[in-house]
Amino acid sequence: MLRIIDQTLLPGRLKIIGLQSVLEVYEAIGSLRVRGAPAIGIAAAYGLYLAMRSSKAVNKKSFMAELAGWRQYLSEARPTAVNLNWALARLERTAAISVEEDIAKLKQLLLREAQAIALEDAACCAAIGAFGLTLLNEGDVLLTHCNAGHLATAAYGTALAPIYCALEQGMRLKIFCDETRPLLQGARLTAYELMQAGANITLLCDNMAASLMAAGQITSIWVGADRIAANGDTANKTGTLNLAVLARHFGLPLYVCAPQSTIDPLMPTGKEIEIEQRQAMEVTEMWFKERMAPPGIAVYNPAFDITPAELISAIITDKGILRWPYCF
Amino acid sequence: MLRIIDQTLLPGRLKIIGLQSVLEVYEAIGSLRVRGAPAIGIAAAYGLYLAMRSSKAVNKKSFMAELAGWRQYLSEARPTAVNLNWALARLERTAAISVEEDIAKLKQLLLREAQAIALEDAACCAAIGAFGLTLLNEGDVLLTHCNAGHLATAAYGTALAPIYCALEQGMRLKIFCDETRPLLQGARLTAYELMQAGANITLLCDNMAASLMAAGQITSIWVGADRIAANGDTANKTGTLNLAVLARHFGLPLYVCAPQSTIDPLMPTGKEIEIEQRQAMEVTEMWFKERMAPPGIAVYNPAFDITPAELISAIITDKGILRWPYCF
Repeated sequence: MLRIIDQTLLPGRLKIIGLQSVLEVYEAIGSLRVRGAPAIGIAAAYGLYLAMRSSKAVNKKSFMAELAGWRQYLSEARPTAVNLNWALARLERTAAISVEEDIAKLKQLLLREAQAIALEDAACCAAIGAFGLTLLNEGDVLLTHCNAGHLATAAYGTALAPIYCALEQGMRLKIFCDETRPLLQGARLTAYELMQAGANITLLCDNMAASLMAAGQITSIWVGADRIAANGDTANKTGTLNLAVLARHFGLPLYVCAPQSTIDPLMPTGKEIEIEQRQAMEVTEMWFKERMAPPGIAVYNPAFDITPAELISAIITDKGILRWPYCF
Repeated sequence: MLRIIDQTLLPGRLKIIGLQSVLEVYEAIGSLRVRGAPAIGIAAAYGLYLAMRSSKAVNKKSFMAELAGWRQYLSEARPTAVNLNWALARLERTAAISVEEDIAKLKQLLLREAQAIALEDAACCAAIGAFGLTLLNEGDVLLTHCNAGHLATAAYGTALAPIYCALEQGMRLKIFCDETRPLLQGARLTAYELMQAGANITLLCDNMAASLMAAGQITSIWVGADRIAANGDTANKTGTLNLAVLARHFGLPLYVCAPQSTIDPLMPTGKEIEIEQRQAMEVTEMWFKERMAPPGIAVYNPAFDITPAELISAIITDKGILRWPYCF
């Protein structure tokens, strides 16, 4: 059983749910109960293990065929996060390269690989935090978007990892956090986890970032990533491009934090990244079941946007700080 | 009695309420039942008349003193919209310059002036529409923010007036409309009135405008104004500066539409314009009485932002189309 925090219920309720089957993992990823590129990867890896644990395959060939089927199934839970496919591919490769023909052993290898992905992610976050910390100074005022914190990963998060590291060292920072429409991951999740950590945090609507920057109230902007193309173009939560353009206009640095696994060297540029379009209801009703817009209105609701590499001041991975021009 | 549409109930319910007293008008302006700079001006003018209609003053001097008191009261209903003070000043001047000493006649003059303001606003909107129409072409795709339509004025609106004129001529346009957090005037009001008018309209969250522009899907951006300084710096709904920076980055024109009365020549630049900070609850709960953010979170909630004149491609008033550099 995979235990996750049901993030759709935060900040009102902290509920841990157990996912018993691959179908439940698929649903949890698709409905954003678990979200954030690294967390999606970890959940998918465990999901694939859950699918194969109950496999009735009698030889490795049929086991691998079944594995490929469930891998395909899980990869469609959400289209944009590269970590999803990356984690699934790791499990498939683990089984494929194993000389082991014993099905029970293969199942064990899959579990260990899923566990390894989670452990490595925690180490990744710590490394990102340490590298990112070198870009922060006492008294800095940071703006962040969506949730790239511990709820999105196995540990400190990505964009929030340097903030957690700074807090541990007693560095005083002020954090502004975009609410992040439509699903309010900033208001519900980032605000929640940073308040719990004792950070000095202020919430704003996404469209208010410009006036803060114009007033000289922001030092730097920190975001995560769902997929980074070979040239550095970055897919992240819708609204990131918005901040990147503002940051450039107001002369502020925009930092993207992500584990190496978020980089997709097979994707030449951001133009090729598929952008998930989500239901109109997220914009027009949220979870209140009360219309906030006229019935029947057409809605544009992309989950992500693409920030061109030249607007990204640095990409902070677990391997170090990379500067434009990027070439992965 | 002043009859208004209670805009806080749209789009769920179209309710017309009657305001019987100056206190009710003050409340309606403060709580955004009536909103949009021109509509606020009209409502305030009628509000001042309602206050003075029941005046017990026995001579012009005490009548004028009372008038000054109510003017001051109403001017504090909302701090940013210049039309509020402009309309109140018109009524005060009307009474002041009248040689009439008959109190009943003075009351009648105030009513006529309030009616004149409403009629002039309708003519203003028509003129803005006609001038703005010259900037539109068949097949254009427009992005608008907040509500600067007929709900905000006595007639066609300001930023939406050219769109209504285009629709009347059978010109095909596509309109994207920002939902406009926190109070969703775009989703609730602009979407509502443009759908009723049969326009081709699509709703988006404020943070999604950048990806539309990056994809080359927008031709021009149209917004209203709450106050325009002598140098053209413009206070408008929070998020306008955001769009202005994006428009400049992506090489798109941003047009500000406003009646002459929105220009405040006594305000040298945007820096001097007071920005109304509104309640945290608008961001954290809206009208659902359900928390969307952790209890106790600090909130930045300015009602307006200031767009510097150099980011405004043109200001379209009832007198014509003005281009940067502006000097009022």
